[in-house]
Amino acid sequence: MSDLPKTVELREEGPREGFQIEPGPIPAVRKVALINALAATGLKHIQVCSFVSPKLVPGWADAEQVVAEILPPPGVAFTALWFNTRGMERALAFRDRLKLFGSIAFAASEAFSKKNLNRDRAGQIEAMRVLTKTHQDAGIPVTRIGIQAAFGCNYMGDVPPALAVQAVADGLAIAQEAGATITEVALADTMGWGTPLRIERTVGAVRERWPHLTLALHLHDTRGLGIANAMAGLRLGIARFDTTVGGLGGCPFAGQPGAPGNICTEELALLCEEMGIATGVNLDALIEAGHLAEEIVGHSLPSELLRSGTLDAFRKRAA
Amino acid sequence: MSDLPKTVELREEGPREGFQIEPGPIPAVRKVALINALAATGLKHIQVCSFVSPKLVPGWADAEQVVAEILPPPGVAFTALWFNTRGMERALAFRDRLKLFGSIAFAASEAFSKKNLNRDRAGQIEAMRVLTKTHQDAGIPVTRIGIQAAFGCNYMGDVPPALAVQAVADGLAIAQEAGATITEVALADTMGWGTPLRIERTVGAVRERWPHLTLALHLHDTRGLGIANAMAGLRLGIARFDTTVGGLGGCPFAGQPGAPGNICTEELALLCEEMGIATGVNLDALIEAGHLAEEIVGHSLPSELLRSGTLDAFRKRAA
Repeated sequence: MSDLPKTVELREEGPREGFQIEPGPIPAVRKVALINALAATGLKHIQVCSFVSPKLVPGWADAEQVVAEILPPPGVAFTALWFNTRGMERALAFRDRLKLFGSIAFAASEAFSKKNLNRDRAGQIEAMRVLTKTHQDAGIPVTRIGIQAAFGCNYMGDVPPALAVQAVADGLAIAQEAGATITEVALADTMGWGTPLRIERTVGAVRERWPHLTLALHLHDTRGLGIANAMAGLRLGIARFDTTVGGLGGCPFAGQPGAPGNICTEELALLCEEMGIATGVNLDALIEAGHLAEEIVGHSLPSELLRSGTLDAFRKRAA
Repeated sequence: MSDLPKTVELREEGPREGFQIEPGPIPAVRKVALINALAATGLKHIQVCSFVSPKLVPGWADAEQVVAEILPPPGVAFTALWFNTRGMERALAFRDRLKLFGSIAFAASEAFSKKNLNRDRAGQIEAMRVLTKTHQDAGIPVTRIGIQAAFGCNYMGDVPPALAVQAVADGLAIAQEAGATITEVALADTMGWGTPLRIERTVGAVRERWPHLTLALHLHDTRGLGIANAMAGLRLGIARFDTTVGGLGGCPFAGQPGAPGNICTEELALLCEEMGIATGVNLDALIEAGHLAEEIVGHSLPSELLRSGTLDAFRKRAA
């Protein structure tokens, strides 16, 4: 247990992940309400929207309307997601309130890349090279590498750790060529293939090659193993996790309808706090935000903790 | 990872846990259908009913009707739960088809014991002494010690490992006095207080005192941490888990309505099989049984795997 971190950063992606997948329509004002509630919980990083095609993702057609209404409180970063120059340009209009950074995205599985982006490995390298340059020209630093399907893939099957290593190497090569400083590599279990052993093997393989990279995990809870995989990450000293309040979200690209979303922010926060790992989050406020999210989307969310409440509440009653 | 077991025993408690808590009424014939479906999945231990007061648990008022209709296939043990002499006598009528054994039950938290059984520690010791003798007189071996609230308690708060050790000691003393051979001690996270660290500490404390006891875990998924706690148990070499298909069940005594049930059989089976730990279970058949359970109770169950399906299905398509 000696590798458990002392603190973790929970990066909330509930608004972005959730509203992209809910059938809706959900009024912009409700999206704003959830973002503001989350910003008051102690969370320091909140991904508030996607700048993506309104045809492909109608749930974020109102991204501009939402972002125009929100301002991050001191110490909180609002971020956004986009995949191309058009999205980047939309984000640039809000550089006063969004923390903008570029990501170099690869899939460890070429089959996934072909299926979702219609690009093979070489095509993706070229596309990322161009996108990195575009970001730099616009004054947006490229700081993150994201590796999708890092632990397995619905189209390829098992993904050997060596392929995740190769994808990271491809991303780092592009960054180096462009003079970009990568501050984080996120390994994503996009389609729920992770197990604690796979997390250990793949993280181990990446660390063996680059011992000083800061790693993050983006874990989907597709098969109920997400929190066990997060725990495996914590045991390896990983201290950054993408999560969504209540388990909002799902994966539109995973090739299966109804695929559950990310691991729940409040459940990972509970796990951490109960083991003495500081998250900076007020768990009661986070659970309230989760209830608000359920109210906004109009159905219950996967989180068990939203229903059962914190242990501290019982401790106080028992005392 | 060297302590991971090679095989695990999943003890299915879905019928007993589920039908005791569902509002129902559910016809006996549907209960029989689920039990038969589970008995065809490769599961070797299935707890099929409770012999408890029909006033307190109306869902099992028809226990006799159900058990009269089921016969375990070769190699499968059907078990039942009861708490007193009256329940034992009802179970005895089915000794041709049920594997009968007695349990010595303690709570690590005296507050829980007082609240749920109206007995303090001394009262529970006396009650278990009498019940053990009653079982032995009836020719039913007393082989199990079960410790409720082993990791925390809604009425007491945190439960120090020393109290779990004391409860095990109380149980072993009764067994020794009665000449009963205990083959298993089950530590239960009755109200969802477990974390991987608490599992390690309490299991560690029990093992330090009795290195050769066979331990089992009974984990409720009250706060979404159940599978991470099971993984912690696997890392400690624990190879017996009580689980419920689909996550059927809940805790009527936990002092909170809607408390989720046990960890899902199929999700723990997936976790094990994907890490090379044999369960003997056909995961596809188990998922089908989970769907049948959802149909019978008339609502969806907490299991994510019931919705997303096995990885092997994707492997085959990808191949």
